[in-house]
Amino acid sequence: MASHTSAARARIVIIGCGFGGLEATKALRNADVEITVVDRQNHHLFQPLLYQVATAGLTAPAIAEPIRRIFRRQPNVTVLMAEVTGLDAQARTVQLGDGQTLVYDHLIVAAGATHSYFGHDDWAAHAPGLKTLEDAYVIRRQMLMAYEEAESLRADAPVTERDALLTSVVIGAGPTGVEMAGTMVEIARHTLTGEFRRFQPKNARVLLIEGGPRVLGNYPQALSDSAKRQLEKIGVEVRLGARVTHIDAQGITLDEGGQTQRINAATVVWAAGVAASPLGKVVAAATGATLDRAGRVQVLPDLSLAGHPEISVVGDLAAAMSHVPGKDPAPVPGVSPGAKQMGRTAAANILRRMQGLAGLPFRYVNYGDLATIGRKAAVADVGVPLLGQLRFTGFPAWLFWLFIHVFFLIGFRNRLVVMIDWAWSYWTFERHARIVVKQDS
Amino acid sequence: MASHTSAARARIVIIGCGFGGLEATKALRNADVEITVVDRQNHHLFQPLLYQVATAGLTAPAIAEPIRRIFRRQPNVTVLMAEVTGLDAQARTVQLGDGQTLVYDHLIVAAGATHSYFGHDDWAAHAPGLKTLEDAYVIRRQMLMAYEEAESLRADAPVTERDALLTSVVIGAGPTGVEMAGTMVEIARHTLTGEFRRFQPKNARVLLIEGGPRVLGNYPQALSDSAKRQLEKIGVEVRLGARVTHIDAQGITLDEGGQTQRINAATVVWAAGVAASPLGKVVAAATGATLDRAGRVQVLPDLSLAGHPEISVVGDLAAAMSHVPGKDPAPVPGVSPGAKQMGRTAAANILRRMQGLAGLPFRYVNYGDLATIGRKAAVADVGVPLLGQLRFTGFPAWLFWLFIHVFFLIGFRNRLVVMIDWAWSYWTFERHARIVVKQDS
Repeated sequence: MASHTSAARARIVIIGCGFGGLEATKALRNADVEITVVDRQNHHLFQPLLYQVATAGLTAPAIAEPIRRIFRRQPNVTVLMAEVTGLDAQARTVQLGDGQTLVYDHLIVAAGATHSYFGHDDWAAHAPGLKTLEDAYVIRRQMLMAYEEAESLRADAPVTERDALLTSVVIGAGPTGVEMAGTMVEIARHTLTGEFRRFQPKNARVLLIEGGPRVLGNYPQALSDSAKRQLEKIGVEVRLGARVTHIDAQGITLDEGGQTQRINAATVVWAAGVAASPLGKVVAAATGATLDRAGRVQVLPDLSLAGHPEISVVGDLAAAMSHVPGKDPAPVPGVSPGAKQMGRTAAANILRRMQGLAGLPFRYVNYGDLATIGRKAAVADVGVPLLGQLRFTGFPAWLFWLFIHVFFLIGFRNRLVVMIDWAWSYWTFERHARIVVKQDS
Repeated sequence: MASHTSAARARIVIIGCGFGGLEATKALRNADVEITVVDRQNHHLFQPLLYQVATAGLTAPAIAEPIRRIFRRQPNVTVLMAEVTGLDAQARTVQLGDGQTLVYDHLIVAAGATHSYFGHDDWAAHAPGLKTLEDAYVIRRQMLMAYEEAESLRADAPVTERDALLTSVVIGAGPTGVEMAGTMVEIARHTLTGEFRRFQPKNARVLLIEGGPRVLGNYPQALSDSAKRQLEKIGVEVRLGARVTHIDAQGITLDEGGQTQRINAATVVWAAGVAASPLGKVVAAATGATLDRAGRVQVLPDLSLAGHPEISVVGDLAAAMSHVPGKDPAPVPGVSPGAKQMGRTAAANILRRMQGLAGLPFRYVNYGDLATIGRKAAVADVGVPLLGQLRFTGFPAWLFWLFIHVFFLIGFRNRLVVMIDWAWSYWTFERHARIVVKQDS
């Protein structure tokens, strides 16, 4: 080791520790490099289960792990909790919010995505999205407080006031929207039974609004149809081809085939639009890279930037293509396996470049689609070695969903706790994380 | 049931659902009355374990239970999440923050206590106390962020800056202060090992400041001595007879026997002073009751107010005496068994009055004193039937402490989860709730 002085080792900076940044860092675990991981949060978040925090089924620590704990036994990693404010691609430095500068030889930008309200940023205050733990707490508080307010209503309050408090709207019927709507119905129909004296929680309404012609629009048609049937069976009102034209503190306005409709609702969740992190603009300005309409950075086949082989962009921030020999390049979907695979490719390409080799093109392997709808209901479309493509729905798909999500959680303890929580709530219908804490203190 | 119309049943309002209000409500479970429980929070909090949330060992839902869930199977209870803003003892009404009014035939005020900074309210911003989950989150964030900032310090920052970030001060060596200080040392010495690259967490300092001559000042002298030895053995710097004269954002100023000393510290926790809820003043103004120096309401032997037998005050808000036949009345200590016993007595006396009987005087049964100091360390002084008074320390006291706290937690699930968490952290030294979430969103 004496021959490797600190200055001689390649300095790698990784911005963001979601699925892409995490996998890239792990893939470099045996490399003789100095890695600095920078994230605004102190934790890596298992986003596929975030809706369960928003709906009081899981606590935050069950799906979030301190980043520095993950890398405690990877000595080539230093973790900094900081905001990235600038990039100088010529000087090869990253500026942090506290005024410090990090010098890099290789940079991986994995800053992820945020919500997009399609130009209606004023909707954000009334219809929170679901990307961070903060978002999940906001939604949980909104939902639980609406029930509290319904119980506190004066006896002479107009019935429409109570109806609005007991109405929830989820906008966007992708996997997150489907999961949120299914769980919200379960809470009203089962979890809260017997807890209120002045109304029946089971009379609560949950609407799932989708502008497109079907739920789970990126899934095969048969799974979309099954998901819609399962949602309606448990009590979700599914509205397809319905465009949201206005959102305010009291509810939303819909355009359904030219008909305008007003729906008053205390709880509105935005699961419709995603935009790349604003860091994409910083990268574009510093490197001349171009952004696509969603603000994602256009990358070369090997995930690096034109003219800047030392900078890679991965995950939701990258407008990346999958390159399978003999096939046309295909866009990579914005799901966690895509981000993880990109992170590993970017790390491998850094190691190749350190050996003087060119980067290899990224190839996305699609293991399938999976979404849960509620208790004992889900849809799955997965490729299984030897068996080929399997498509299944209902209870078997739900069990498969449980297994996959527990398997990919980080940490044995989290897996154990989540399994106990799920077994518990399966038998009791309880959702134990129903604690509202004031935000302003 | 037809003979009992709604109007004929006695209306009982219970303000606050801590230990006193909770026990009073439960004690009325079979009474033909209409109970309304009013609390500002949606949850009952198991305060004896709150320091474990502040130190990232437990999640909030493990020690907090939604109040309406507790009473879901007690149909004579309606739960309202609301703030009490006024009391009209003549009209027998309670005013709520939303403008509504509750009419009562019997009222139990169990609004508890808050921190007291002995006239230095400006200290609150720099030295949070520990009464609510919000408080616990503030302390947890302060402690974890200090370590993050120490890792982010520029290489040329003065060494005193890092030292201050790695210094924690706990003011007040009652049970909460002792538990906080012991756990903070454990985090530095064990939990964070290997997670930082630029300093050694085990070099962190934890000071426990006490104005009086010993720790656990209300406990027998031998237990105080043992607690001090155990604290020092695990690395806490105990300062007795030290008076805090100033607190600001950078640290504290101490007066130790006339010597002034400055201690810069990023984390300062206030565990020194307790004052009754401001609702005490409302009660006094409405009923003519007198308050003691700590703001507690003076009650009659049966916990009701002079001239107002229909109003009882219990728990930390009551300046109550214990009445044992043949002995002088003795003050009731501000511990959870005291509040629970008062709640049961107040409820029983309401039932007696409904039968035309006089209330019985309150009698406090002291089951003993118990405090934990850290891993495998505690002190206990308990009365055991047949065996008499037992006093023990160290590992046996620690096991006893674990058993008692799991036993008194509400809900089987919480007991199970807390036992798993404790077993897990016993073997791994991990503290799993180390997730910092921004407060301002």
